[in-house]
Amino acid sequence: MTSRAGSRTAGTGPVTAAGGSELAQAGGRSRDDRESRILSIIETARAKRAKFRDERITMAHGAGGKATQSLIEGLLVPALAADGGALATLADAGAVAEDLALTTDAYVVRPLRFPGGSIGELAVNGTVNDLAVAGARPLALSLSLILEEGLPADELRAEVEAIARAAAAAGVEVVTGDTKVVERGHADGMYVTTAGVGRRDPRARLSPQSLRPGDRVLVSGSIGEHGTAIMLARGEFELDADVASDTRSLWPAVDALLDAAGPALRCLRDATRGGVASVLNELARASGVAVTVREGDVPVRPVVAGAAEILGIDPMYVANEGVLVAFVAPEAADAALAALQATAGGEQAAAIGEVRSEPPGMVLVETAFGGRRIMDQLVGDPLPRIC
Amino acid sequence: MTSRAGSRTAGTGPVTAAGGSELAQAGGRSRDDRESRILSIIETARAKRAKFRDERITMAHGAGGKATQSLIEGLLVPALAADGGALATLADAGAVAEDLALTTDAYVVRPLRFPGGSIGELAVNGTVNDLAVAGARPLALSLSLILEEGLPADELRAEVEAIARAAAAAGVEVVTGDTKVVERGHADGMYVTTAGVGRRDPRARLSPQSLRPGDRVLVSGSIGEHGTAIMLARGEFELDADVASDTRSLWPAVDALLDAAGPALRCLRDATRGGVASVLNELARASGVAVTVREGDVPVRPVVAGAAEILGIDPMYVANEGVLVAFVAPEAADAALAALQATAGGEQAAAIGEVRSEPPGMVLVETAFGGRRIMDQLVGDPLPRIC
Repeated sequence: MTSRAGSRTAGTGPVTAAGGSELAQAGGRSRDDRESRILSIIETARAKRAKFRDERITMAHGAGGKATQSLIEGLLVPALAADGGALATLADAGAVAEDLALTTDAYVVRPLRFPGGSIGELAVNGTVNDLAVAGARPLALSLSLILEEGLPADELRAEVEAIARAAAAAGVEVVTGDTKVVERGHADGMYVTTAGVGRRDPRARLSPQSLRPGDRVLVSGSIGEHGTAIMLARGEFELDADVASDTRSLWPAVDALLDAAGPALRCLRDATRGGVASVLNELARASGVAVTVREGDVPVRPVVAGAAEILGIDPMYVANEGVLVAFVAPEAADAALAALQATAGGEQAAAIGEVRSEPPGMVLVETAFGGRRIMDQLVGDPLPRIC
Repeated sequence: MTSRAGSRTAGTGPVTAAGGSELAQAGGRSRDDRESRILSIIETARAKRAKFRDERITMAHGAGGKATQSLIEGLLVPALAADGGALATLADAGAVAEDLALTTDAYVVRPLRFPGGSIGELAVNGTVNDLAVAGARPLALSLSLILEEGLPADELRAEVEAIARAAAAAGVEVVTGDTKVVERGHADGMYVTTAGVGRRDPRARLSPQSLRPGDRVLVSGSIGEHGTAIMLARGEFELDADVASDTRSLWPAVDALLDAAGPALRCLRDATRGGVASVLNELARASGVAVTVREGDVPVRPVVAGAAEILGIDPMYVANEGVLVAFVAPEAADAALAALQATAGGEQAAAIGEVRSEPPGMVLVETAFGGRRIMDQLVGDPLPRIC
């Protein structure tokens, strides 16, 4: 995150925090007061985030929400950028050499294999996608394996083959690697870390600070499938539903968007840990704008919506591994959406909202009932170790 | 490894396998027969290495010896290079874009901090050194952390600061990163993976296949210190000695070598897991040559030699984190050695041996007693998790 939410200016429009219980047609001073209080509380909390005060690491620090952000912004970035480095947010792809980008991700998903994919495919596609949404065409990957003593060789072989297939499908080469082994019980089968190098596409003019009121918000497919598939695969819930991970390379979608919208494409993000909601919050803050989402326009497969409802989670916060969020200037939005929908895997792409000026740094959801609620960033993902 | 040891040709000189028990002055047919048998057994064993037949992963697969090699050559490379990739040996830095190299390493050292360094410094210097010995000037690093739930924040902060300091000292920037958290007991505090991008130096003409008879073998410093320091830090042996890890960036040494020897520099390796002995074996095989080492010329600090003797290990197999092995054409060897010795940390650099033609693929040690013995690659490092 490169900038915090700007200070809130006067004239904030009607916002309710509780969703369906207070509808848009309710008005008057008492509601405005309550909105102001809520927004003020959120702002105060956000202003504190840059400090990392926890004494110990908790699962929430790895879940992609506010706790992760406090770890990154409050501890990692200050230390690593102290020597004058250009490091803005550690999670973004970094610049290296002229037009090259470098990115990395560790994968600790449980179980190792799940409907629609496995840790090996995630490790390739996840890093490829980090490059893609940075506007960089993926070129090469490194592969680092931490293996648990006792891991069946067949499981390792299956993952290495999955990595090879996913890399071939994404058009990248694994050019270097490393293997370490830790004693039984000191890892869960295997942890996989990939790093990727990509070449920045000259068509791309992407920046998290570039969102402007009027921009359209697109998603490249139906949401919440990866996280739901993992949760169901763990068998912790007595729920059986046909949901598969959406893990895939997003470079074809990015390529199509760059062709269709070029410099009108403001910013891209893949909606992994923390889901679409976390992406929208990050960019609303980075650009000092508001984002509104029309809940009814967000593509969610009924089986995912059903599972999420039973489990009490909002699909907007559930991780995806093959869905990107695109912010596009209004004049290019239709072309961008058509381009996404023409991409394999992008048939369900949809325009789900708009960028507004007020309240800066906030994400608002227009519910199917006509009300609005604030969709803040979570402290932690409700589903640990989904990637 | 890109080539296996060539088939053994006739005319092999006298070689004994048992070291001191049979001295060089012993001669005759029975000794030659015995040598032939031993070399034949080693060759047969090596010919089998390319297959990975183990049913489960063991600690030896992560220790940098033959078992690691069988995992890499028998499982990883065949799968990952199947799509026509240029991948030769996964452990080397890979080519990406024109003149850029990519490399990666995972670090799982126990304990996290030890005399002379910590996991964070290793993670920077180790990846910087992989680039350096590939003849690539280190430019940028990625940083991926797998944290154990419950890790004290101060320990994390200390490592992040160590990473920042080591990166500044090595002249590289950490430009991107990722953090994951696993449940208590599923990691040992933290595992750290770095990847590095470097620019290939135009002075470098390095290749593991380029060793020629007559080439000199140099080491850039005294050996065995990192592995010994780790072992002592674990306190498993009731031994107290003042040994610190040698972890440091080797780019200054490589830079000096390239200036002094240029194209006469055949190949470089940092002698990490498996030590100097494993490097010599790898390159003897890759070039189809023999390497002879004069044991008495190998710089080993007395305290390291003493600890190694008590623990029953040979310092030649012990990991270093700041020592490289250089193979140099004879006409440039003196200049190269002088350049190393003029580098900070290179005062103990020494010429320790030569490349010969026979027996191909073998490493021979001339002992202080005037005998010779074969120094083969180990199945596993005697010290697990030293990096």
